[in-house]
Amino acid sequence: MHTMEMEYVIGVDAGGTKTVAFLAEPLGEAGYQLVGKGAAGAANMAQHREETVGQVICAAIESAFASADMAPQPVSAACLAVAGAGRAPERLRLLRWASEAKIAEHVQVVHDAEPVLYSANPEGVGVALIAGTGSLAYGRDASGRDARCGGWGPLLGDEGSGYAIAVAGLRAAVRAADGRGPRTRLLAAFLEHLDCPAVSDLIAAIYDPSVTRTTIASLARIVLREAEAGDSVADAIAEASASDLAQMVGQVTRQLALEDGAYHLALTGGVLIHDVPFRNRVLAQLDAAQTRPLEVTPVPDPAAGAVTMACRHWHRVHWRR
Amino acid sequence: MHTMEMEYVIGVDAGGTKTVAFLAEPLGEAGYQLVGKGAAGAANMAQHREETVGQVICAAIESAFASADMAPQPVSAACLAVAGAGRAPERLRLLRWASEAKIAEHVQVVHDAEPVLYSANPEGVGVALIAGTGSLAYGRDASGRDARCGGWGPLLGDEGSGYAIAVAGLRAAVRAADGRGPRTRLLAAFLEHLDCPAVSDLIAAIYDPSVTRTTIASLARIVLREAEAGDSVADAIAEASASDLAQMVGQVTRQLALEDGAYHLALTGGVLIHDVPFRNRVLAQLDAAQTRPLEVTPVPDPAAGAVTMACRHWHRVHWRR
Repeated sequence: MHTMEMEYVIGVDAGGTKTVAFLAEPLGEAGYQLVGKGAAGAANMAQHREETVGQVICAAIESAFASADMAPQPVSAACLAVAGAGRAPERLRLLRWASEAKIAEHVQVVHDAEPVLYSANPEGVGVALIAGTGSLAYGRDASGRDARCGGWGPLLGDEGSGYAIAVAGLRAAVRAADGRGPRTRLLAAFLEHLDCPAVSDLIAAIYDPSVTRTTIASLARIVLREAEAGDSVADAIAEASASDLAQMVGQVTRQLALEDGAYHLALTGGVLIHDVPFRNRVLAQLDAAQTRPLEVTPVPDPAAGAVTMACRHWHRVHWRR
Repeated sequence: MHTMEMEYVIGVDAGGTKTVAFLAEPLGEAGYQLVGKGAAGAANMAQHREETVGQVICAAIESAFASADMAPQPVSAACLAVAGAGRAPERLRLLRWASEAKIAEHVQVVHDAEPVLYSANPEGVGVALIAGTGSLAYGRDASGRDARCGGWGPLLGDEGSGYAIAVAGLRAAVRAADGRGPRTRLLAAFLEHLDCPAVSDLIAAIYDPSVTRTTIASLARIVLREAEAGDSVADAIAEASASDLAQMVGQVTRQLALEDGAYHLALTGGVLIHDVPFRNRVLAQLDAAQTRPLEVTPVPDPAAGAVTMACRHWHRVHWRR
């Protein structure tokens, strides 16, 4: 594999919802041709051991090779963007695993927000807002200085995430059932969706050991659907969640002294990609707070940004030699 | 074991924090003499399988026999009060297990709030408010009609519980660290208690697989301590939690048409037993909402109420013969 010619590169985006691997053939210094796509389950360095995260990443990479009718093989460069890998100790543990697993000649491990920035613009500058199963705002200015807000996981925060929206909706529903909270269509909507004849059946449905955080987070779309349909309880949850996300972006722009109307905003995660009305709520809140972005880029596939980063990393390493 | 003479009885209180078993010798129809006490881990029918709950209950019973220097043996009657056993299917599953495990000649399974009422008054009438790892309000009037509010578990609710108070405190602390929320002494208090040099170390400390719900709930005392010490963020959390609990009691009194100043209130769970200032906040909120109890009884050992229920059950069964 020690040749100066870059053959294939891999970009991986591993997060709380799923792990996606892109296999690509580089074209010149900047571009690439996508060869295969693969996916596997959720992976998060804050919640799983590196062996578990590694196994999930391997499964996604193997699935990408399979989609290209290729046998898995070490590639020239790989960029692994992993949720919960924001700090050096986690990155080093994963890097050590990747080197043993012989994924690529050159491997870099970054946190999951970095390729979102690179997907949005080639300089990787601006603010990335992630709202999927978890949530995080991360920004970088032209000088390379960075800042983050949120990303504390489901217990400590992740405000505005699919999980947070779903949990707020479920709680509002049971409070309504108890007679402690305002009536809401969320109660009937959850009971129907979860196939629960009675309200008390929610307990078995939600606490069943097979129910993952990702399953819970997927219930966010019920809350957002009822919000759009005019349910005032669901609407209040959607509005508060959009406000939480806008506040996270605002905090990052303040830390980096990014000016109103002058920064790039890249959006990713199921809640922001698939739910346009909710995305518009977030943008309206940024407007109201005078933290307006110059440009907004939805990034459905952060793994593409990871491929770009892998290509750049390879060129940087070989240029230095 | 089929004798008309009642020899020993067992009362078990199994909940989200711990499981306690009392072994007692009945004295006449009403009283009893405590012979041994045992304890084991948390058990909850909504979150664990009946085999797991059963094993924990067995461990607590064996520990009670051991404390009395006795070998474990089937007793005349046992009352198992178990969190999450509010519905017939869960109770039946546990009853089937108890019959196979040959714990006692007569076994009854009730939910964890019932013995709290029996600990407070011999008729088992009034409102029981539990705020430990989880929370629940349960009431019964003189005619036997009952009502409940809350008790939905950590994801769907359990407002005002130790877990809810701790999580609210942790979230406020990281929001302060992010610069998104008001400054609070909670941040330094948690970092010190959890031995975290940096704020980002909280993630590893909180999401470590060895950290249980009970461990998290135990952090409530930090929030309540800072609330009493005058931290305004902690104070707001304590006040909102007390209000949640008072609202749950109020909902039960309304459903049972219990009048202001005319019902018995029994309190249990770590948050209400060990933290007197917090208990007083709840009582002040009941006052403000004009849902005042006639009498307030803290119940540090609901297992004692379970012993009373076991004695009554035995007498009822044998009187019918």
